[in-house]
Amino acid sequence: MTNTQVTLVQLDNYGPWTVTPSPRREVDLQTMQSRMYADLSQAFGMRDGYVFFTRFDNMIAVTNGLDLEDHARIQESVRNRYPVTVSLSMGTGPSPADALVDATAALQDQGSAQDADRREALLGQPIPEAERTDDDVQIAHFDVVDATGTYTDQLDAFSSFAHIEQGYATLMRYMHDAHDSLSFFVGGDNIIAVCPDLSTADYADAIDHVSATAGVDVRVGVGRGTSAHDAGMGAKHALEDARDHESDVEVLPEP
Amino acid sequence: MTNTQVTLVQLDNYGPWTVTPSPRREVDLQTMQSRMYADLSQAFGMRDGYVFFTRFDNMIAVTNGLDLEDHARIQESVRNRYPVTVSLSMGTGPSPADALVDATAALQDQGSAQDADRREALLGQPIPEAERTDDDVQIAHFDVVDATGTYTDQLDAFSSFAHIEQGYATLMRYMHDAHDSLSFFVGGDNIIAVCPDLSTADYADAIDHVSATAGVDVRVGVGRGTSAHDAGMGAKHALEDARDHESDVEVLPEP
Amino acid sequence: MTNTQVTLVQLDNYGPWTVTPSPRREVDLQTMQSRMYADLSQAFGMRDGYVFFTRFDNMIAVTNGLDLEDHARIQESVRNRYPVTVSLSMGTGPSPADALVDATAALQDQGSAQDADRREALLGQPIPEAERTDDDVQIAHFDVVDATGTYTDQLDAFSSFAHIEQGYATLMRYMHDAHDSLSFFVGGDNIIAVCPDLSTADYADAIDHVSATAGVDVRVGVGRGTSAHDAGMGAKHALEDARDHESDVEVLPEP
Amino acid sequence: MTNTQVTLVQLDNYGPWTVTPSPRREVDLQTMQSRMYADLSQAFGMRDGYVFFTRFDNMIAVTNGLDLEDHARIQESVRNRYPVTVSLSMGTGPSPADALVDATAALQDQGSAQDADRREALLGQPIPEAERTDDDVQIAHFDVVDATGTYTDQLDAFSSFAHIEQGYATLMRYMHDAHDSLSFFVGGDNIIAVCPDLSTADYADAIDHVSATAGVDVRVGVGRGTSAHDAGMGAKHALEDARDHESDVEVLPEP
Repeated sequence: MTNTQVTLVQLDNYGPWTVTPSPRREVDLQTMQSRMYADLSQAFGMRDGYVFFTRFDNMIAVTNGLDLEDHARIQESVRNRYPVTVSLSMGTGPSPADALVDATAALQDQGSAQDADRREALLGQPIPEAERTDDDVQIAHFDVVDATGTYTDQLDAFSSFAHIEQGYATLMRYMHDAHDSLSFFVGGDNIIAVCPDLSTADYADAIDHVSATAGVDVRVGVGRGTSAHDAGMGAKHALEDARDHESDVEVLPEP
Repeated sequence: MTNTQVTLVQLDNYGPWTVTPSPRREVDLQTMQSRMYADLSQAFGMRDGYVFFTRFDNMIAVTNGLDLEDHARIQESVRNRYPVTVSLSMGTGPSPADALVDATAALQDQGSAQDADRREALLGQPIPEAERTDDDVQIAHFDVVDATGTYTDQLDAFSSFAHIEQGYATLMRYMHDAHDSLSFFVGGDNIIAVCPDLSTADYADAIDHVSATAGVDVRVGVGRGTSAHDAGMGAKHALEDARDHESDVEVLPEP
Repeated sequence: MTNTQVTLVQLDNYGPWTVTPSPRREVDLQTMQSRMYADLSQAFGMRDGYVFFTRFDNMIAVTNGLDLEDHARIQESVRNRYPVTVSLSMGTGPSPADALVDATAALQDQGSAQDADRREALLGQPIPEAERTDDDVQIAHFDVVDATGTYTDQLDAFSSFAHIEQGYATLMRYMHDAHDSLSFFVGGDNIIAVCPDLSTADYADAIDHVSATAGVDVRVGVGRGTSAHDAGMGAKHALEDARDHESDVEVLPEP
Repeated sequence: MTNTQVTLVQLDNYGPWTVTPSPRREVDLQTMQSRMYADLSQAFGMRDGYVFFTRFDNMIAVTNGLDLEDHARIQESVRNRYPVTVSLSMGTGPSPADALVDATAALQDQGSAQDADRREALLGQPIPEAERTDDDVQIAHFDVVDATGTYTDQLDAFSSFAHIEQGYATLMRYMHDAHDSLSFFVGGDNIIAVCPDLSTADYADAIDHVSATAGVDVRVGVGRGTSAHDAGMGAKHALEDARDHESDVEVLPEP
């Protein structure tokens, strides 16, 4: 059974900061946000975690294997190098969606995202090291079948993007509502979903839904592991298998 | 009348690179992509351009004021600092959507996005300096009405994101199909659209469409200028006015 | 005759910040400092300027071609993305050393480097565009003759470094005291000097001095141009010539 | 007794790369080098290591607590994000200077720093976890007494730098030759030395030598710990004590 540790990363009082004392230059905001995301990717990643940019001012991480001290260090490193600070809130459980509900609620209890007095909250408890297992994290890595031939080399760049985005939006909602999963666009034609213990049939069902609803054909590789990295690397290899076998769903290690 | 200069930034043969000789660590890909975007934001931004991350392997920039030499320098800087290269293709015209169609077609003519022999294409011609005007660029900056109170502080972080994403997807498609505009999510609850010469009624129409279709209430500030930065900063100030006046659409400078 | 525009970049009240409220983690300080330097390299470099890291909290730039607005934008970009701010002060003249004396004095007049009330000073006047010439900047690029064979592959890494550092320290002082030049270690075995209108004999004299005093053999390529980049690229090509010809001093374009 | 684990980080075949096919733009090289250093600072730092930029193409790290897998991951992350690769070689022992001699010799045995066929060497063995102690690392953090009042606010920026650099060069050589220590300039007026088990008298001796030889007054805080971070943070607090007490040498925890 999965036991995902999810961390909500929320920039403290960020919206007001972006327009104080007057609106800040957009390219600087974009640079600052994307670099913070890049830094968090490396920082969580050094300990086998994943982080997704989501809205940039609210990022979602899978942090199995990172304890409170690791979180505190990342929080400190942001404070030492950026003009803004972050709050971190952890939730855990077999359903990634529910774990994030818990993490978000705990942070909301401390004050609004735009509360000037709520800074650098650090909430929640990691999964105890002794309780961690090889099945804690399940990652599904989706991509679009022949995205380059179907979209990138055929349509204009915005229309390609719009098609892929539409496939993503459909998949993201369905995986959340039907399968308690958190799905994120990670660039190109790639979507990574953090899932509970789903079956091959569940994935096939989601793929059919996206094809029928958005007209976009996707396939998926699924991996399981003790951390986001372990599960995610399994998913990548499984996706390579799916490309090679021209199959819709592949799972590694095989169930 | 607008005359937008759009540049398509496409990473050369990127998909194959990410899995050669075997799938690369996801956090490193995320870091590399988002830092390249950050660097391009600064590089285009130093000359008043904007760039949007779009799919990260295909980014779209508004580059009025940047000539071929500026583009070549940015291309060189990527080559000198990253393990991958980029192709750049410019298109211009009163319709941002059509300008991008031209830019994309020119690049597709040089070979596939996954063609190992097509590297560092540099295509298209900038708007001659003598033809540039104060109305060349029109930027619309949308945000969600009370996103913090309605979503961020109320729903779990993924559901907030899903709502905002749904509003974005609806707006993006409508602005493209009905109004020849290119719209991009830029983080938080913010969407920036690059538009032709639209009227206040056109923007009100788009806002109504998003509200009716996706159930998300947005408002917009619109700016015009000789560059993306000038127009975009006008749009930001106009959006501040819209917040203050609780209006749906504000335009600066006033028409 | 040269007419170098030098900009002093000074972090505002940085020392106290590094220990407030208690000493900050060293790796974060190192990361922040070196990234700011990297960003300034790109920002000045987009307009053909050079910046040297010097002490990191005090950096020295050659900014021929950058006007006050360019400086203000760089200052703003730092403010928008870092937890600290910078003051900028320009000086100009045929002697780089004297130009920096002027730039420093103007900034000192505004208050101490550790004055909490002195923030984001922007001082001095750039060389008027109409007065710029192709001889304004003279750059000398030195390296150590066969550094890899003599040091890197022979001695332990610290001893190699100590030898190169000693050569640098000797050269830096001599070029400053005898030739009004500002010399900077830029990594590897490379030193870049910003010089007034020196002759081939002057450079040969400096090379002899370093050899006699520090026992380190260096050679130099010299370039002239309207900007740091133009002169610096000439110097690099001249240095390639010096390697090929096994000569001590090469100058491009030839005088 | 100290037992320092030192890692030599050497860019593979970097010199030739910087001039192939022709000299690369200096600002891009500076940006690439300083960002790699920043990234390594964070990567080693996430596991309590320190890295010093040294020559940028040869960096020296203190890596007590990082095992081979940690090193391999950092090496992989560079390969995935930069146009160049790094070799890593570890040495250990009570003398930091000797540990680096061993690390360097092992790497030299694999080929020259400019050998196109030597890529991504990963050499040496870390200190076994069971043998690590609280005294393994001794860090001394020096700064210049009243650097701001004596130099920064009084002299021009280059002369301030030259004085501090001269103090550093003197200290670096003396600490190496007399005390088997590796000292590095880390910005501002700060020098960090990685030392064997030195006494308060040894530090006082070094300070006297720098004062007598270079005319620069420095003081020092010394810390000990199981990692570079632990020892380094002790040293920073000790240096704060030295400032408060106007003493020359302070050690934490007190011997």
